[in-house]
Amino acid sequence: MIAAAAQRAIDEKTKPLGSLGELETWAVRLACIQNTLTPRIDRARILVFGADHGVAAEGVSAYPPQVTPEMMRNFARGGAAINVLAKANGLEVEVIDVGVNADLASLDGIVHASVRRGSRNMLHEPAMTADECTAAMNAGREAIRRAANEGVQAVGLGEMGIGNTTAAAALLSGLTGAPASETVGRGTGVDDERLAHKRDVVAQAVAKHASDNPQATLAALGGLELAAIAGAALEAPAHGMIVVADGFISTVATLAAVRIAPNIRTNLFWAHRSAEQGHGVALEALGAIPMLDLKCRLGEGTGAALAIPLLRSAAAVLTDMATFASASVSREA
Amino acid sequence: MIAAAAQRAIDEKTKPLGSLGELETWAVRLACIQNTLTPRIDRARILVFGADHGVAAEGVSAYPPQVTPEMMRNFARGGAAINVLAKANGLEVEVIDVGVNADLASLDGIVHASVRRGSRNMLHEPAMTADECTAAMNAGREAIRRAANEGVQAVGLGEMGIGNTTAAAALLSGLTGAPASETVGRGTGVDDERLAHKRDVVAQAVAKHASDNPQATLAALGGLELAAIAGAALEAPAHGMIVVADGFISTVATLAAVRIAPNIRTNLFWAHRSAEQGHGVALEALGAIPMLDLKCRLGEGTGAALAIPLLRSAAAVLTDMATFASASVSREA
Repeated sequence: MIAAAAQRAIDEKTKPLGSLGELETWAVRLACIQNTLTPRIDRARILVFGADHGVAAEGVSAYPPQVTPEMMRNFARGGAAINVLAKANGLEVEVIDVGVNADLASLDGIVHASVRRGSRNMLHEPAMTADECTAAMNAGREAIRRAANEGVQAVGLGEMGIGNTTAAAALLSGLTGAPASETVGRGTGVDDERLAHKRDVVAQAVAKHASDNPQATLAALGGLELAAIAGAALEAPAHGMIVVADGFISTVATLAAVRIAPNIRTNLFWAHRSAEQGHGVALEALGAIPMLDLKCRLGEGTGAALAIPLLRSAAAVLTDMATFASASVSREA
Repeated sequence: MIAAAAQRAIDEKTKPLGSLGELETWAVRLACIQNTLTPRIDRARILVFGADHGVAAEGVSAYPPQVTPEMMRNFARGGAAINVLAKANGLEVEVIDVGVNADLASLDGIVHASVRRGSRNMLHEPAMTADECTAAMNAGREAIRRAANEGVQAVGLGEMGIGNTTAAAALLSGLTGAPASETVGRGTGVDDERLAHKRDVVAQAVAKHASDNPQATLAALGGLELAAIAGAALEAPAHGMIVVADGFISTVATLAAVRIAPNIRTNLFWAHRSAEQGHGVALEALGAIPMLDLKCRLGEGTGAALAIPLLRSAAAVLTDMATFASASVSREA
């Protein structure tokens, strides 16, 4: 009902019918999510969930694991890409430690919600126990409740964690059956030799932990920040929260969430088509069309920070534009 | 020199090499345009040039000609799409009457720079005399000088004018030799019958006014707002102004400008791939890759308003991000 009314309202605005393309489609979806004909995104926030990965011990990343806590400090000081892109686009940033392998207790400016210091090595055991996975998901749910309580209307879901393209590829293979050759890419930039090794590690982990249960698959093959993102996506509908997934890792986490509860899809947007290899597999599994295609593959929520202004713009079209009648503009002859 | 230094600076930022894709390419271009390693877009402005078209008398538009002055009033009151999209994205709007067929002298909130009340009917005579075309181009140049004097660093080039997809298609055919069947689309939404008529009108006008001189072609087959946009694009380099062309009409005007002075291309970005048929022909003639693809075809500078935040973001990456050294983040192993 809201959808049809929103489309009728858009068709009364002073512009040729359909001439704002995707913005009109998005505006209708925003009206449905907020259950109003005057949707707004006044406050939006990027949630950056940080965690380490036991599987990083297998040498699957171009960067050493200490980069995860180093980047958490960089986030807290405002020097990372997500900080400057959020600022340039009028967005807030909240950084949440859900499992970094370092003592960050004294670090101000982040939310401390660590479940454990990094996931377990999925090559040998499930990355998380069921309880650990639930705790990480709850950290994501809590971030959505906090945002909703503070008047935030849209969140972008970002992450930081050395090794997490490996975990995301394993989770994607586990959820879809797609082989490691399709889901594993270069991440932050591994060479050919390490790429082959990374594929071998993922294939072994997937073979070891295959399951038909999406939450069990998330626990076995995911990671703490992936579980937190899934939890955030699952919590969003209860608060009318608009959710923008970022790139490869974030999208795979939303795929897990959609497999757990398909109805949450209503609230989800996918920011951009990542240059990371497996992203196309994840988008296809979701039937998702990304908003942007900028050949980015950074993560942290950077793609979401670039996409949220488009949703804010779409909301403004429906909420703030004059109609042919209100502006005394003639219609088609 | 600036380009290489800017790329080196980006490669020192705390992110995997190349992981910000197009943003990195744009950041390097912005550094070159502003001749600095710390480019900024603090103030940006959409220029909306309004004018009427003699060729509208041939019944080539879905909307009646009085919509041009009606929309000028809508712009002045802040109710049009460009007003709300500019506001949502932190941009200014300046509306310039360069040739609307109405007395807008008493309308506050717009710039009065009318050359004549609408162009001539190109089916019978050149749309503008050489002097009229130069005067309209000067109105565009003046808008750039005004923006530069006021500290604006980037402008989007928009337009309003019933009949102007016909003029733009004729100009595009005149500049490239592409037939009317490729350059003429539905504009604001003509039906099949009127589309065939529109193509016939364009083909006749192009046959009548063929010329090898791009400025003569602009005068004969363009329009006052198209000439103003071309003038703005030509003036930009002298002020280090970043210029973002909008959709079909704006892009065709920049093609005329680039044919007049190829070196101005350095300052130009193309905001989005319009759904209007001829846009692909114009982009191809320019070798231009649009920043966005949102199936929009509204004009007014709306696509530019959506694209400028991406350039603002690109500038912020180069100017504001921490380096591996400054943030004490480890590099690739």
